Order: sequence, then C-alpha cells, then structure tokens
Amino acid sequence: MNTVIVGAGVAGLTAAWNLHKAGQSVTVVDPTPGHGASFAAAGMIAAVSEVVYQHETMRGLMTASAAMYPGLVAELEEVLGHGVGFRGTETLDIGAHPADRDTFADLAELQRSSGMTVERLTVREARRLEPALSPTIAGAFLVHDDHQIDPRVLVPSLIEALTTDGRSSVVHRRVTDVLRDGTAVTGVRLDDGSEILADTTLLCPGVALAGINGLPEAEGVRLRPVHGDILRARVRPGRPPLIDRTVRGLVDGRPVYLVPRTDGEIVIGATEREDGFDGVVLEGAYQLLRDAQVLVPGAADLELTEILARARPGTPDDLPCLGHLAGVDNLVVSTGYSRHGILLAPLGGRLAADLVLGTALSAPDAAILAATDPRRFSGDSPRSPERTTL
Amino acid sequence: MNTVIVGAGVAGLTAAWNLHKAGQSVTVVDPTPGHGASFAAAGMIAAVSEVVYQHETMRGLMTASAAMYPGLVAELEEVLGHGVGFRGTETLDIGAHPADRDTFADLAELQRSSGMTVERLTVREARRLEPALSPTIAGAFLVHDDHQIDPRVLVPSLIEALTTDGRSSVVHRRVTDVLRDGTAVTGVRLDDGSEILADTTLLCPGVALAGINGLPEAEGVRLRPVHGDILRARVRPGRPPLIDRTVRGLVDGRPVYLVPRTDGEIVIGATEREDGFDGVVLEGAYQLLRDAQVLVPGAADLELTEILARARPGTPDDLPCLGHLAGVDNLVVSTGYSRHGILLAPLGGRLAADLVLGTALSAPDAAILAATDPRRFSGDSPRSPERTTL
Repeated sequence: MNTVIVGAGVAGLTAAWNLHKAGQSVTVVDPTPGHGASFAAAGMIAAVSEVVYQHETMRGLMTASAAMYPGLVAELEEVLGHGVGFRGTETLDIGAHPADRDTFADLAELQRSSGMTVERLTVREARRLEPALSPTIAGAFLVHDDHQIDPRVLVPSLIEALTTDGRSSVVHRRVTDVLRDGTAVTGVRLDDGSEILADTTLLCPGVALAGINGLPEAEGVRLRPVHGDILRARVRPGRPPLIDRTVRGLVDGRPVYLVPRTDGEIVIGATEREDGFDGVVLEGAYQLLRDAQVLVPGAADLELTEILARARPGTPDDLPCLGHLAGVDNLVVSTGYSRHGILLAPLGGRLAADLVLGTALSAPDAAILAATDPRRFSGDSPRSPERTTL
Repeated sequence: MNTVIVGAGVAGLTAAWNLHKAGQSVTVVDPTPGHGASFAAAGMIAAVSEVVYQHETMRGLMTASAAMYPGLVAELEEVLGHGVGFRGTETLDIGAHPADRDTFADLAELQRSSGMTVERLTVREARRLEPALSPTIAGAFLVHDDHQIDPRVLVPSLIEALTTDGRSSVVHRRVTDVLRDGTAVTGVRLDDGSEILADTTLLCPGVALAGINGLPEAEGVRLRPVHGDILRARVRPGRPPLIDRTVRGLVDGRPVYLVPRTDGEIVIGATEREDGFDGVVLEGAYQLLRDAQVLVPGAADLELTEILARARPGTPDDLPCLGHLAGVDNLVVSTGYSRHGILLAPLGGRLAADLVLGTALSAPDAAILAATDPRRFSGDSPRSPERTTL
C-alpha cells in the first residue's frame, strides 16, 4: 500500500512517519518542506498554558497530544541516534500588570478544574527561578508540564527518519491537482506535469489547500489564513543564557512569549492577524520587541537575528479538519491546526494514519474525529457545526 | 599605469571610476563587493542637515562633495543608459518634542551662518507637504538641497560602468597582505594565495583594514568600528507612498530617519554604538521602530523587510583618512568616512584618484588633504592632530 501526502509540515510528516512505521510506502510532496507555518512556530507543547474556555474538545486534543510527545521523541531519537529538539523545561506564565495577572489567576482556576497543575508564585519566587524577569511584573504561574520542541529540528528529523531506509521519500514539488476517477481520488499532479498515483491521498497543505485544483469538495473545509509575525533573537556569543524556561506573558492583555533554545536562540512571538498579508508587519514586530522587554528587560541586549511571518490555517471553531470529505473516496484531510500545529502533531499524525489505514477506531478516537470532521461546516456534515462546549 | 584597489564599497569604487576615466587599468578586490557599510547606508546626501558644530573642515568636505553628486550621476547615467538611484526630493528635519525642535532651531542658525538654506515650517505646513507626519510633532524645518541616492543601486552601477569596456575589473577575493619591496608597495596578495602587482595600491577597506597584513604603518590610522543597526521597510503592494521626502528627526534627542525610495522601500535608521558587536542589537531595532512611528505613525502598517547591522569606519576626529602613509611609497589610503561614506564619495573618489595619478593639487584640495592626512594621529604627522574648529 502507498500514500501520497500533500504538505511536508509537521502535520504531514507525523502522519507520514506513522504510515511508514506501519509498512506503507509514503511520498510527501512539498515545494519547500518544513518552510510553511512549521518554520515559524515556536514549538511550545503547552496544553496547560493554552487551555481555552468553553472548549472541552480542544482541551482533550491538546492534553492527549502533549502526552504523546515523549514517546514520539524517544522513538525518533532511537531511530536517528540524535536529539530531535525536545526540551523538557517548565513554562512560566507572567502577568505584566495586575489585570494581566488576574487573567492568569482566572485561567488557573480553569486549569485546576480540568485536572491540570499550575503553581502560583510570588514575584520573588519567579525571579529566583528566572532572575532575568522584570521586578515590575505583577504575578507569575509555574506550569511544570508545558515543554517545548524546536520545529526546525523536529521537521528535518522526521524527514530523516522517514527517508532513511529508501521506502518513503520527500519530493520537492508543488501539487497543482488532485487526480480523480469519478468519486475516487487516484493521486496528485505536480507542477512539472508529472503524476503520483497512490492508494490514498492525504492532504496536509495548510493554507496552500486553496491552490490545489480538482477537489471542489474541499471548499467546505473553510480554512482561513491567520497570519503571525514572529522574531528570533540570540544571546550574544560568550554570554550566559538569558532565560532557561519558556516565558509566556500578557502585557496589557497582549500575549507575548519567549522560548529559549539550548543553543542560545530565543523565539519571540507571535502576533495574530487576519489581514491576509504575507509579509512581516512593522507594528507587529515592534509590539513583540516592546512587550518582550517588559517581561525580560535584558532582552534588549540580544542579537535580533530574524523577522518572519507565516499563515496558520485557521478554522471557524479552531478545531482542526481531520477526516474524510463528502462524496470523495481514497482521500483524507488533516489540516487546520491553527496556532496548535506543533502541539497537536503527534495525535493528528496518528489519527490521520489510522484513517488512511482503516484502523478500527477506539471510542475516544471516534469522538475526536466526530468533532474534527472536515464536513462539519458544509451542509453535508454528519453532525451539526455547533461548537462543543463545557 | 594600473592600480589595485582594496575594497569595493562606495569609496573604492568612486576612486576606481575616476582612475578608469583617466585611462588606468584598475582592479578592485573585495570578497563581497558593495556589501560592507555601503550595503547598509541610507544614502542621504545631506550636507545641510548633517552640518556639525565646530567642524568647519568637515562642513567644507560635505558641501563640496554634495555639489559633485549631480555631475557624477549624470556621467554614470550617460555611460550606462539607466538611472543610478539618485532622488532629488527634499529633506524635512522634524523635532518630535519641543526640546528636539529647539535643537533643530539652534542648528538652523548654524546652517544659515554657513550660507545654507533651511526653512522653518509650521506643523500645518509640514503636514501639507507630508500628510503622514504626526500631528503631535513640535516643529519642522525644510531643507531643499538635501537629497538621497540608493547605495544598492549606485554601487552596482559603478561596478557596471567600471567593467563595461574590459580594461578594469572587480575580483571577488579577500586581500590578506600588502606586498612590499622595502618601502615600496608592489601590490596585494589574495586569500587564494595569488598576487596582484600594481603601480599603485589604494586602500579603501573600511574596518577590514585591521585584517590586512604587511603594513605596520597602517596602525597609525586608528580606525574604529562604529556599528549601526538599520532597518528596511516597504509600503504594502498597491498602497500609495507613505512619504515622498526624507524625514530626519529627533525624538527625545535620539536621531532617526526615514528615507523613501521610489519603489516603495523606506530605510529606517540608524543607531550608533561602539560595542564591537556585528549583529543587530534588539534594543536598537526596537528604538528605531518606536521613534519612526512617533514621527510617522502610518509606518506601523509598513512591511518590515530587513534588519541589518554594519560597522562604519570611524576616526578620532570624524574626518576621513585620505592620503599617504609615512615611509611607504606607491600606496594611498582613502577610508574612515564614518557616517558620511555616501555623501563624501564623489569628493573622496576624486581626491584619491588625484593622489594616485600625482595630479597637481589646487590650494583648496591641498588644504583638505592636510586635514585628512592619515598620519595625523601618529607621531610622524605633517600637522598636529588637533581638531579644525571655527
């Protein structure tokens, strides 16, 4: 059996890895593998910090997927013999001003009522953990279980693991068309005119979905680009790390985070905007630089190494689109992971592979897939498109 | 006769162009032509706005060189048949706050006493010229005679003009050594071990001077790197220009400028720091973004396209080092142009060529070269190293 996967971001590659492990021959097609939204992502595995109100389904997905990361990391490290970018440090949620702190305090109630662990710290305690935190912050919360992985290490590692034994491959081409034989999808056509035929086609293209022809049924998926500006900085050579833990904060209600890599890089992100503009917006970069310094004043001395913008694939209910399309056979869709693409990759990759393989679904998996059904926004949905709430 | 020139920045290339026009065969050596300080420079030809107190010599150099630009531009355009990046728009000097305005008002006195023309505007008048200026600015001064040239167009144009007829060339190599025969310099050695022999060697390497061996006499030149962070932004596709004139401002005493190109690019610069760090400093980029928005709030919507840092070659008295070295024959130095490399290029290029060619000097040129003598900081100076003042 073989599968062609459209999109070599973290969604496509984790699915590819699961299919490859199951013995399939997998071809992943992407003009610039790993250089879409996955290239920008900070890689926070933050199921606790990113808990959202009135969205039990999303909470379940995030918690389940975060729990799968240690296994995925261990498995890849075993195959590859090197690390894949995982860093098991904690996360500090910082309120810059009293109202920001109160927002986190309210969130802590929700986190605890969801069975999550979050520890309120005094400013003194927080600064004992991270001395670079500003003494002017209003409050801090320590989340032991929120970690990080560097997508710029994870993605190449997945490609390496996938392609080592020669059975699967990554093709640096753009998919222009889905090939059809009536309702049956038979593969894809590439931008050089060549075709790849496959038993199953798995679509993980993110916002590039709109550029793929031959699949009018995909219009119901209703992805929209949610652009983000994101910066990368670096501790100057010879200087000690500025912070060791991920620092997530609110500054007058604006979210900002600093994610420190082991090599001295610090990712500073991220804006969210729906203006459709692919470039970095000056004001967005400015706000990130300002707010990062409010939380960690010593960020002023960092080297600013990169400015970048990418489009996350957003959906109307923030849940991914993972499942089949109405009236189309041999096709699976797994995209629309929005701001949670890295966090949800292990779970999304496994479920996408299960759908391709026709694996019998457990009751929890079936419930997830009912919620993520790509048909839920079109008239032919098996369930109503209302939001799953508490 | 032939000359080898070390450094394909604007200083080396304008000298090369003058020598080439005089019939010489010129070889310019640079590992990355035009990618040093010239690559960062905004290219303001602002002899009026950059007037400095107590520095009559510098004022004379700047005024003389600015006056040479129209001729250089016309000559290159004639040879090449295309533009070379010159833009003859005016410059607005903007005081963000009352103290900033007063600084410009004081400067206007000096400018007028130096025979320069500067026109004080009301805020209303300034905003009639440039509606994107903030209504909160404290004052504005219009300088008709300060224009701009894009160094990223000028430098490739100079290379094109220089190399069109095959007599002169640009070699993409790094110079490791100056070759000597006693006191006579005979050429240079490159990083591939090859040698270029020449009647005269002209050094225009900027801060790279310190990396060239075989010339202990150059230690007296006393260049120091004055780093600058500089940003490039761009009007979003389909939108009208944000500003048409160069906007230079002071915001609480911090200088910032916005230089608009005809293609929609806006250069936002520049910091000055002497920390020796080659990367972009986060705080520097942040301050430029903040202060640019104070003057022109609509800058918030620009695309931020580039962050960059480069080292300007500074000298103790801010004057360039243009002349001979003590006890060394067949060698001319023309570097140390600090923040004024683009502005001073036409004059510096002509004088460097005159020194190479042994042209008889006019009295004004001789006076300039007495002030810019590279030996002035070492014991063997023909004149004392004191600053030329009013």
